[in-house]
Amino acid sequence: MSGQCPFSRRQFLTAGGLGLLAAKVGLGQGMAAAVPAPGALAQAPTVPFRGRHQAGITTPQQGHTYFAAFDLEAPTREDVIRTLKLWTDASERLCAGRTAAPMESDLTKPPTDSGEAIDLSASRLTITFGFGAGLFTKDGKDRYGLAPRRPEALVDLPKFNGDQLIAEKTGGDLSIQACADDPQVAFHAVRQLARLGAGVAQIRWAQTGFASGDADVTPRNLMGFKDGTQRPEEKDRERLVWAGAEGPGWMQEGSYVVVRRIRMALEHWDGTDVDFQQQVIGRAKDTGAPLGGKGEFDPMNLDAADKDGNSIIPDNAHIRLATSSTNDGAQVLRRGYSYNDGVNFISERWPPWRQGIEYDAGLFFVAYQADPRTGFIKIFDKMAKLDALNQFVTHTGSGIFACPPGAGEGQYIGQALFSGAA
Amino acid sequence: MSGQCPFSRRQFLTAGGLGLLAAKVGLGQGMAAAVPAPGALAQAPTVPFRGRHQAGITTPQQGHTYFAAFDLEAPTREDVIRTLKLWTDASERLCAGRTAAPMESDLTKPPTDSGEAIDLSASRLTITFGFGAGLFTKDGKDRYGLAPRRPEALVDLPKFNGDQLIAEKTGGDLSIQACADDPQVAFHAVRQLARLGAGVAQIRWAQTGFASGDADVTPRNLMGFKDGTQRPEEKDRERLVWAGAEGPGWMQEGSYVVVRRIRMALEHWDGTDVDFQQQVIGRAKDTGAPLGGKGEFDPMNLDAADKDGNSIIPDNAHIRLATSSTNDGAQVLRRGYSYNDGVNFISERWPPWRQGIEYDAGLFFVAYQADPRTGFIKIFDKMAKLDALNQFVTHTGSGIFACPPGAGEGQYIGQALFSGAA
Repeated sequence: MSGQCPFSRRQFLTAGGLGLLAAKVGLGQGMAAAVPAPGALAQAPTVPFRGRHQAGITTPQQGHTYFAAFDLEAPTREDVIRTLKLWTDASERLCAGRTAAPMESDLTKPPTDSGEAIDLSASRLTITFGFGAGLFTKDGKDRYGLAPRRPEALVDLPKFNGDQLIAEKTGGDLSIQACADDPQVAFHAVRQLARLGAGVAQIRWAQTGFASGDADVTPRNLMGFKDGTQRPEEKDRERLVWAGAEGPGWMQEGSYVVVRRIRMALEHWDGTDVDFQQQVIGRAKDTGAPLGGKGEFDPMNLDAADKDGNSIIPDNAHIRLATSSTNDGAQVLRRGYSYNDGVNFISERWPPWRQGIEYDAGLFFVAYQADPRTGFIKIFDKMAKLDALNQFVTHTGSGIFACPPGAGEGQYIGQALFSGAA
Repeated sequence: MSGQCPFSRRQFLTAGGLGLLAAKVGLGQGMAAAVPAPGALAQAPTVPFRGRHQAGITTPQQGHTYFAAFDLEAPTREDVIRTLKLWTDASERLCAGRTAAPMESDLTKPPTDSGEAIDLSASRLTITFGFGAGLFTKDGKDRYGLAPRRPEALVDLPKFNGDQLIAEKTGGDLSIQACADDPQVAFHAVRQLARLGAGVAQIRWAQTGFASGDADVTPRNLMGFKDGTQRPEEKDRERLVWAGAEGPGWMQEGSYVVVRRIRMALEHWDGTDVDFQQQVIGRAKDTGAPLGGKGEFDPMNLDAADKDGNSIIPDNAHIRLATSSTNDGAQVLRRGYSYNDGVNFISERWPPWRQGIEYDAGLFFVAYQADPRTGFIKIFDKMAKLDALNQFVTHTGSGIFACPPGAGEGQYIGQALFSGAA
C-alpha cells in the first residue's frame, strides 16, 4: 500500500480545470452536464476568512449552515489563546478550500483533516466566531481574567414570554457558525475546529439549517410565507449591524448575534385557513404583499382600517410588531435558516389530551446587530407577548454571542480582547 | 386584500423563461449570476412519477432526502385505498413541479398546499412508496384483508449483532422517501402527503439526509472515505434490484428497500491513525484504491498477502466482507445519504465512565434489492459479526418495506395489491 497520503483539497480541482470547476459551482449530483458559461469563473467559490469584519455576517447567504455552541473547559487563558490561534489558521485554510492543516504523509498518525470535503469546492464557506458570557465569567468565576472586559451589550437574554428553552439547545461560552453552499462542507469545517479544540472547548449543542431558493427572490419559510422582505438598507448597516466606539475597543467592527431555535407547529398551521394565516402574518401568502398592498415591496400601511374601523394589518399581526417603525427604528440583520430535525412524539397535557407526532422543524433564527438591547431584545420582548404567530411557534433554543471584528493578517480571531488595553 | 390566491408552482418559472430556469437548476443562493449554457435546459428538473418502476430507485441520486415511516391508523381497507389514490395524484403533481392540488381561490379554507416550494423548481423530486409488514398484519390482526398477500421476501429483519435500535427510529407500516436536489422541496412533498393522509397514516419517524458532490465522482462519506465504488452493473439490475415472477404478481417490477440509520463515532474515528483507518475500510483514504491496488476502480485482490502471510486487505476489512465475491454474488443497490442531527449527550457505562457529547451524524443507509433474504440480510448478517468498522458505527434505526411497481396512467400506487388476484 501507499506510504504517502498526498491530500490537497483543491488538487482535483486544479487538475480538472475549467470544466470541473464549473461542475462544482453548486450544482447538485447528476447535474454535472449542465456546465455554466465561462462567466461562472468570476463567481469564486471562496470567501476570504480575514478582513475588517468577520465573514458570514453580511456575506450573501449560503444554502446551508452548521452552528455549534461550545462550553469552554480550558484550564488557563493561554489554552484559550492557543486554540483561537489554531482555529484562525485552520479557518483561513478551510475557507480557501484547503484541508484544515497540511496533510501528514505519516500514516501512523491521525489525519490532520478528516477528509470528507476533499472532492468538494469551498462552497463559499464562511466561519464566524462568537464569544458568550461564559468566556468572561462562569458560575461567578473569572476563569481567564476577562471579566472586566465583558461588553455591556453582551447581556444575558431575559426570559421571554412563552420561552420553552431546552438546556441542551441553549447557551454556550463560544459559538462557531459555518455557512456554505454544501452541508458537508459546513459540517466538515466545524468538525475540524472541534477536534483542534479538544480539551479546551467542547461542543454543547449544534444545529443544522438550510436556505432554499435564489438570491434575487425573497425565500419562503416553512410556513409558506415570504420571509425577509424587510432588511436593513446597505446605508444603515454601519449603524445597525456593526459595533462602534460606544463599546469596548476590542469589539469595534464586530457584531452581536442572537440565535433562536424556533419550532413551528406545521401540523396545526397547515389546517388553518389561508385568510387566517394572512392575518397572522400580515401579508398575502401568494405575493408577499403587506395586507392592503399589491406588491411584496409595497410599504406597509399600518393606519389603514376597514369600514368597521379594524386595522387592515391586524394589531397583533407579525409584521406590524416586527417592523422598525413600530420599534423606534430598531432593526436587526436576519440571517436565519430553516431547520428540519425530523419528528418528535408529544403528549399534550390539556384537553383533549392528544398524543401524537409533531414535526421538529422550523426556523433557526440568526440575527446580527450592533447592540442586542436596542436590537433583538427591544423588538422581541413585545412580540413575545403580542404576536399572533406565537400560537404556532415555540422557542426551544437560544444563544447570544459577541462576534469580534475580523482577524487581520497575522492576527488571531479575538486577539484584541486578550492583548489590547481594557 | 386580495380575494384570490392564484398559486401555481411553475408560474414564476414559465414567466421568467430561460434565464430564470437556468438560475434554478440547482444553483445555490448568491450564485444566480452563473447562468448555465442553454444545454442545461435539456436537464429538466422533473422526473416523471409514473412508470414501470417507481422513480427514486435507479434515478441518479439527488442531493437531499426526507424519509418518513408511517403507522397506519386507517379503520378500513377503503380508507387505505382512498389515501393511496390521493397520494398518487398529489405525487404526480409534485414531481412535475406543481402544488399538491390546484390551489383554492377560497381563502376561508385551509390551503391545499402549504406553499413553501412555490418559488422553487421541482429539483428532480422523486417520491417512492413502500409497504411494511404492518399493512398486512399488525399485532396479529389482518386489518385490511391483505395478510395472505404478504410477500415471502418481506421478512421481518432479524436482530443483528450490535443493533441498538431506537423504537422511535424503527419500523413503520408504510414508507415514503422523497429525494430532491433541494431539501425544502423534499420535505414539502412528504408534508403534503402526510396532511392528505390525516386519520389514515400518521408519521412514526422521519429522517433527513444529504449527498454532496458530483455524479461523476464517488462521494466521500463522513468518515472521509470514498463510499459506493462498487455498484451493481446496469446489466445485473434486472436480477438484483427488481422483483420478478418468483414472488406475488403485485410486486413484480417492484423492489424491497432496507433502511438503516447508522451513527458514526466520528469523535473517536478522527483520533485514529490513517493507516488504521485504511485497514478498517480496506481502501486507501486518498485515492479510494483497494489496499494493494493503485486506482479506485482496480479490482480487489483478496488473496494478496504480505511476506508474513497476512492479508493485504485484512480479513475483517469492511470492503472484503461487503463485496459480492465473498457473499456468493449477493449485491444491493445502495442509495444512502449522510445524515446530521447535531449532537447528543452520552454517558458511557464502562471505564473510564466518560460523559460527554457525541455527534449524532452518520449514514442513512438505503438499499434496494429484489429479495432482502439474498441481499441485505445475506451480506449484513456476517458483517454485523465481523466487520472491523463495527467499532465505529452503531445502527440506531431500521426499516424494511416492499416498494410496489410504478403506477401506470390511471392507476394508483400499489393498486395491484388491492385489486388483483392473490
